[in-house]
Amino acid sequence: MARLTRAEPSEPADLKPQLGDPLRPVTIAAIAESAGVSVPTVSKVINGRSGVAAQTRARVEAAISRHGYRRSSPSARSNMMELVFDEIEDMWGVQIIRGVERVARQHGVGVILTEFGPHRSAIRYWIDDTLSRRPDCLVTVAQLDEEQRHQLRARGIPFVVFDPTVELPDDVPFVGATNWAGGRSAARHLIGLGHRRIAMIAAPEPILCCRARLDGYRSACDAAGLSGEQSLIVRAELSRAGGEAAAFDLLNRPDRPTAIFAANDLQAFGVYQAARQLGLRIPTDLSVVGFDDLPLADLVDPPLTTVHQPLTEMAVTATELALALGRGERAPQVGLELGTSLKVRQSTAPPGTSA
Amino acid sequence: MARLTRAEPSEPADLKPQLGDPLRPVTIAAIAESAGVSVPTVSKVINGRSGVAAQTRARVEAAISRHGYRRSSPSARSNMMELVFDEIEDMWGVQIIRGVERVARQHGVGVILTEFGPHRSAIRYWIDDTLSRRPDCLVTVAQLDEEQRHQLRARGIPFVVFDPTVELPDDVPFVGATNWAGGRSAARHLIGLGHRRIAMIAAPEPILCCRARLDGYRSACDAAGLSGEQSLIVRAELSRAGGEAAAFDLLNRPDRPTAIFAANDLQAFGVYQAARQLGLRIPTDLSVVGFDDLPLADLVDPPLTTVHQPLTEMAVTATELALALGRGERAPQVGLELGTSLKVRQSTAPPGTSA
Repeated sequence: MARLTRAEPSEPADLKPQLGDPLRPVTIAAIAESAGVSVPTVSKVINGRSGVAAQTRARVEAAISRHGYRRSSPSARSNMMELVFDEIEDMWGVQIIRGVERVARQHGVGVILTEFGPHRSAIRYWIDDTLSRRPDCLVTVAQLDEEQRHQLRARGIPFVVFDPTVELPDDVPFVGATNWAGGRSAARHLIGLGHRRIAMIAAPEPILCCRARLDGYRSACDAAGLSGEQSLIVRAELSRAGGEAAAFDLLNRPDRPTAIFAANDLQAFGVYQAARQLGLRIPTDLSVVGFDDLPLADLVDPPLTTVHQPLTEMAVTATELALALGRGERAPQVGLELGTSLKVRQSTAPPGTSA
Repeated sequence: MARLTRAEPSEPADLKPQLGDPLRPVTIAAIAESAGVSVPTVSKVINGRSGVAAQTRARVEAAISRHGYRRSSPSARSNMMELVFDEIEDMWGVQIIRGVERVARQHGVGVILTEFGPHRSAIRYWIDDTLSRRPDCLVTVAQLDEEQRHQLRARGIPFVVFDPTVELPDDVPFVGATNWAGGRSAARHLIGLGHRRIAMIAAPEPILCCRARLDGYRSACDAAGLSGEQSLIVRAELSRAGGEAAAFDLLNRPDRPTAIFAANDLQAFGVYQAARQLGLRIPTDLSVVGFDDLPLADLVDPPLTTVHQPLTEMAVTATELALALGRGERAPQVGLELGTSLKVRQSTAPPGTSA
């Protein structure tokens, strides 16, 4: 039977919900009592064994999730961790993996990498595989749903969400970037250059990080007294094609913007393409700012001014946090954002220099 | 004790070296006899246990490696495989990982990803960790040395080398690309456009795949009767900076080349930079061909003509081969190269169109 211990053994067991404090687990007997089942049943659920009805299992998982649980002894550790993606992106996947590998290496921990693939096809069996592998912790770039988070918690596998794209409960550890501040700095840079008609290509759906970038842009525009910018906000896919289509829309208007802030670098590269086809020079006729600072941002012509997102450092931080949680340590902070920074290159200039 | 079985149980044990046939292992007793040690000693070595002198261990490993060994029963399989990099490259790491993940997903096999990191710092403990994890097989982008290959073989962990950069013994399974044919097709394309002064930026050291690209280029030039091209071959790092420096060298000559074939796309992007700084237009003043077809090859301006290397398909093939070897199957072919193909984009044109 798995042994449940307290993070601080001197404290008395406490059965009140501890959502804000996931590191204070309780005894297995208390979990059983709370869920209205026997101790062996809780043990079966924790160890991923069969013979428990789905509904009972769900009740036990909910109770464990509510009260907190982590595996106890260092000797039970597998020295393995999991890194999970929906789909690994060409441009930034390696930056994330590199950060995770760097920390795992320092700690002598092996990294199991899982990509769910198109349509998240692998997610169904992944949870079972993961539970049976018993990694010490998990960093997830994929957005796990509540049930999946429950299942991990119920097995005492701590996890950290990398760059959350959706709203998470307060007790879910995450590492993101200061997207709002980044969006704000991009717009402020353009305003500082003298631009007044600054368009933004925003993400199509409510992706949290992109919403923050949009709000940051809006905030800077508001502060500068730029009004009526609503029509200058166009939504498009976070791809080169999306950016290109949006830029055509914006640049074919009689009162075309003199600057475009794209929600990510791929969109910005699409803006480059549209501008080229329309005979507009960057930055003389049009300033462009991206977001991400992909490795190729300074390979394009002209090199792209963009907001640097410290992906590798975010991955380092997420991994350190996950490993600390896996060791049963109390994290000083379960959610944090690392600072973005504007990289001014050659795609931005004062407006109208060619007029 | 690990049980050693034959790939074809009906055949008699054969203690002759079987380097050309790594799938015909022998009994543990025969290994012990061959190494002049006891059966338990062989068992200890196979199972990675302590209590064996380094010299004895080396002798046993050599004997096992010489005679072949694989773990026998399917039930002993871990359903885990390892993917190993020296350093994961920004531009093509994801394409390799994606192919491995795709196949692993189909087979329900977990992937342990290891990056040795700068100066291959992790390689020392990696072998021990890997042996204790007992993966079913291994795909290695990192170049393992002979001793490391011995150690894996001695534990019956089959491996496939991805895109070998050095000469390998005939019995080492690998998956590469047709680099020679690719280099040849690049040069033939330029020759077909009418170029006569075609330079090549080659790799600095004897990296096998780049040597093949260079030889393919030479072969095409020879066939076209282009002589005296020796001075047109410049060696440079496989990086943008390397390509830029080499291009400056070539393009500042009085008889500058009208076309440059770079050993990889990164070098080609460096050529773009040098050309821009020298006021040379691509392809009007200079044709450029790269090698790899990185995701950003068609994002640059003008989109780069390059030799497509099917990295994802190579990874798929390497993983399928490794998993088959892990199941104890006899591979129809232990070494193979997948075809490259020229992607003609807009960085190449007939020479002298601007003269």
